[in-house]
Amino acid sequence: MRQSQLFTKTLRSAPKDEESINAQLLIRAGFIHKEMAGVYTFLPLGFLVLRKVENIIREEMTGVGGMEMLMPSLQPKKNWETTGRWDDLDNLFRFKSFYSKNDYALGPTHEEIVTPLMKRYIVSYKDLPFSIFQIQTKFRDEKRAKAGLLRGREFIMKDLYSFHATEKDSNEYYEKVAQAYKTIFKRVGLGDITYYTTASGGTFSDYSHEFQTLTESGEDTIYTVKGKKLAVNQEIVKEEKTWFGVPSAKLKKEKAIEVANIFKLKTKYSKAFGLQWRDKKGKVQDVIMNCYGIGLPRLIGAVVEVFHDKEGIIWPENLAPYAVHLISLKGTEKEADRLYDDLVKQGVEVLYDDRDVSPGEKFADADLIGIPKRLVISSKTLEKDSIELKMRNKVKGKLVKIEKVHESFKKTI
Amino acid sequence: MRQSQLFTKTLRSAPKDEESINAQLLIRAGFIHKEMAGVYTFLPLGFLVLRKVENIIREEMTGVGGMEMLMPSLQPKKNWETTGRWDDLDNLFRFKSFYSKNDYALGPTHEEIVTPLMKRYIVSYKDLPFSIFQIQTKFRDEKRAKAGLLRGREFIMKDLYSFHATEKDSNEYYEKVAQAYKTIFKRVGLGDITYYTTASGGTFSDYSHEFQTLTESGEDTIYTVKGKKLAVNQEIVKEEKTWFGVPSAKLKKEKAIEVANIFKLKTKYSKAFGLQWRDKKGKVQDVIMNCYGIGLPRLIGAVVEVFHDKEGIIWPENLAPYAVHLISLKGTEKEADRLYDDLVKQGVEVLYDDRDVSPGEKFADADLIGIPKRLVISSKTLEKDSIELKMRNKVKGKLVKIEKVHESFKKTI
Repeated sequence: MRQSQLFTKTLRSAPKDEESINAQLLIRAGFIHKEMAGVYTFLPLGFLVLRKVENIIREEMTGVGGMEMLMPSLQPKKNWETTGRWDDLDNLFRFKSFYSKNDYALGPTHEEIVTPLMKRYIVSYKDLPFSIFQIQTKFRDEKRAKAGLLRGREFIMKDLYSFHATEKDSNEYYEKVAQAYKTIFKRVGLGDITYYTTASGGTFSDYSHEFQTLTESGEDTIYTVKGKKLAVNQEIVKEEKTWFGVPSAKLKKEKAIEVANIFKLKTKYSKAFGLQWRDKKGKVQDVIMNCYGIGLPRLIGAVVEVFHDKEGIIWPENLAPYAVHLISLKGTEKEADRLYDDLVKQGVEVLYDDRDVSPGEKFADADLIGIPKRLVISSKTLEKDSIELKMRNKVKGKLVKIEKVHESFKKTI
Repeated sequence: MRQSQLFTKTLRSAPKDEESINAQLLIRAGFIHKEMAGVYTFLPLGFLVLRKVENIIREEMTGVGGMEMLMPSLQPKKNWETTGRWDDLDNLFRFKSFYSKNDYALGPTHEEIVTPLMKRYIVSYKDLPFSIFQIQTKFRDEKRAKAGLLRGREFIMKDLYSFHATEKDSNEYYEKVAQAYKTIFKRVGLGDITYYTTASGGTFSDYSHEFQTLTESGEDTIYTVKGKKLAVNQEIVKEEKTWFGVPSAKLKKEKAIEVANIFKLKTKYSKAFGLQWRDKKGKVQDVIMNCYGIGLPRLIGAVVEVFHDKEGIIWPENLAPYAVHLISLKGTEKEADRLYDDLVKQGVEVLYDDRDVSPGEKFADADLIGIPKRLVISSKTLEKDSIELKMRNKVKGKLVKIEKVHESFKKTI
């Protein structure tokens, strides 16, 4: 992509009412645009990051056998009345159709859709177990929406739902998905600081689990176990005297961002909708369900909260909109054009700063946008038949022979 | 995909209130599920079709230089008041947030978002022209929603918006996107029967254009020119005495489905929001805009309306959820398993009917689901070291040596 063709421009400052670091940087760098509190547009650069996250999550969910589908946001009132959440759920957007006179909820989650849907397909033990997922837009009337991408009134979420005959099978699959989640956080660069955190299960389960990423700006407090990627959240740390064999008092209190949560729903929703299965002897039993959520913008927001410095974002390799930021300084246009074409041919994802602006502006924008590898071509580097390669997370660059990059970029780094 | 793992099952009948052929077949075959009038879930098979359509459209829109992004569904009332459409647009869903007390519209289209957004980025002639697109969910409070996927209250749409300095540039780009649309319809199998149809431009333009696909079940009436893929719609046929050099009376009246439309918005929205550019002499002028829509479910619905018989759907190759439906009859499980593994290794997309049901049920389901190529393996075909290959749109199949399919499926057909 030639940067001169990109309509977005970096901005000196973010909107004044934007308190969070993630939104400030993402807005200034041209990844997102704030439409209202909790509602953002993903601009071309931000959309590329979103697609990378989406693909990683899709691969891992397909890896645990999840079948992808797509459920609607418009949901009928009666389904929400069946579970008692039409009146109880604070953050449910509700409205009436002018023409049909129907009352709709705007889906904040999809238990009320997926459970009655599966009544059509689950009859006997032969139909279980299985799981489905979707990557779909959720709507939540949040009381506060000031954390940038960390809490949106509209946001894309991956939600997976699994259906089981037995508690044993449900528990085994729950662990399998938890492992897949760990892989997701590893792939997006948060593996080392993301903790599998025991949390309260709400009304329908003993415990649920959160994935909590350590960071100073986190809104949550968790209690971590030294040497393990395990933690408990604040709500429940006082309930028990020991966790994972460690006395509660010896756990370390830390700030974190909740990047995902998973729940054992047990038979809460299947009971409400009468989702049952028949065993070999003909006995009818309730289906056991789990659900597994992960908000895509929130994950991106968390990555930015963790990986940035005062100059801008520092993208992990797997999430960066482009792998390489090629910067051409005055008088090197011809060489830079040739290199850009070559890199594209090699299949390297390149953002090519071919704009007619000062070197200072180019470097500042590159730091703000945060692409992991920067290649600078100037008359100075060309004197040495070279190009400067600098990693975004390092202070110093190094000269690399330009012909080597032409031969193979991958081999030069 | 092993069909035994697919949770959906084919159904003998569609919901009684479902009048349209497209929804009846898609529901019975397990592609979609009806949640409410105009609101459907895309089940795994339907989701695969949706992804194929999405990828074709994305490729063609990227091909005309469109940059992909993602705008929100929640839209502020003030933007809709600016264009006068808060009160005027019949099918706008409107509601209030309980917490923020803000009034939201649920986006039926995105001029009210994209136009003010671009004020941030368009300053001078240097910033024009460019185009952006998104593949995103729209909401419309339709008066009637009885045409299955042809008219939804919630549906995924590709909308592209282009921004120009001059009318000449706007017109040239409009033609370029029209060509890309023709490629899209060709790729989904509708090229031969889809007409570039002149329509009324509404209040802000002389003419707009619809892409109309001929089919008996179509709700629209168009007037086609013999030997050309051109037509005019009913609204305007009486306005002029000749069209494309042909007297109106000699045009052929036909039934059609509108599968897309494109508009020259001129300066309607840029005027409303003050979206302007400055020319070389410093003179400020309004930006000229076009918009180009295409509904993905509607396109799928149109394909099914056109390509089906009384047994079920007949998918065009590029939209089929799988390329091959492999059907194993009793006693051939081992040979079929081996062939399935081999086809998957060859990169062929296969739905493998490994279920323990009667041959009649397997064949009926295969016809209903409509995958273009069917491979049947039975003890009879195995006696001749063969497998039966039958195209969904042909009556008769032929025997093919099974070892040839093992070597390369692509070369055997």
